[in-house]
Amino acid sequence: MNVEPIGIIRSPLKTPAGAPIQPRYAQEVDATVEVFEPFADGLRDLDGFDRIWLIYWFHLAPPPRLIVEPFRDNVDRGLFATRAPCRPNPIGMSCVRLVAVEGRVLRVGDVDILDGSPLLDIKPYAPEFDHYQVKRCGWLDKPGGRTTADDRFSQEQE
Amino acid sequence: MNVEPIGIIRSPLKTPAGAPIQPRYAQEVDATVEVFEPFADGLRDLDGFDRIWLIYWFHLAPPPRLIVEPFRDNVDRGLFATRAPCRPNPIGMSCVRLVAVEGRVLRVGDVDILDGSPLLDIKPYAPEFDHYQVKRCGWLDKPGGRTTADDRFSQEQE
Repeated sequence: MNVEPIGIIRSPLKTPAGAPIQPRYAQEVDATVEVFEPFADGLRDLDGFDRIWLIYWFHLAPPPRLIVEPFRDNVDRGLFATRAPCRPNPIGMSCVRLVAVEGRVLRVGDVDILDGSPLLDIKPYAPEFDHYQVKRCGWLDKPGGRTTADDRFSQEQE
Repeated sequence: MNVEPIGIIRSPLKTPAGAPIQPRYAQEVDATVEVFEPFADGLRDLDGFDRIWLIYWFHLAPPPRLIVEPFRDNVDRGLFATRAPCRPNPIGMSCVRLVAVEGRVLRVGDVDILDGSPLLDIKPYAPEFDHYQVKRCGWLDKPGGRTTADDRFSQEQE
């Protein structure tokens, strides 16, 4: 199964180290998303949404590892219980703030995505579809932990 | 860029028509996820989470269309402002309820995913990462609309 970029994300975040680990911690980070021309017609109606999901390729992730020490902990965890980028299919999803749609360029905020990431998909964010009440968030229930990345998932480290 | 299945989703939903359009409307639908053996170690710690994101391939989706009439409306909308499956990269994401982890098989509920869908990724669901307050949900703010699919995104219709 093949995926093809439908656009590219232009962000001030050039390297993993120091980047916010989630949009929640990226309120200072604005970016643009350039959607390639063959896909521009699909952007109609997007400007009515406050937030959107960007689905993208973790292009700077190291090879997959199934056990990782995540940013929010100092204990090894199963990869699928984390949001770490070194996944068998390195697909990221970030719920960013949609500031403006200018032709086929989106201006977005709350961006935790590295510069040059290939865009795979855009979906509208809707509480009806995306908010669920949960009581247990596993190891993430432990308070504290980092809100910015270090170099543990940088390619250089491999 | 290539993606490879890390597992397969076994669901009672055999065809698009009649399937719930989102996990929100799938409270009666239980399914199992078989994670392939080479990836089983990555499931460690997952059982602490009430809900998980399943990222999968819309294997029964028709070819991409950039303008669609979505299930919740009777007006043509830009594809990226909808969750319709006929996407340039047919990647689905569903926040399902995790009932149990039994070896490398997950029992899940609230499932809107068709039987046989190739699994691409699993991520933990966490309100800290996935809940955002929004005021505007575009055309989705219009009340009403379908909660189950019809055959408008079936391959047969093409």
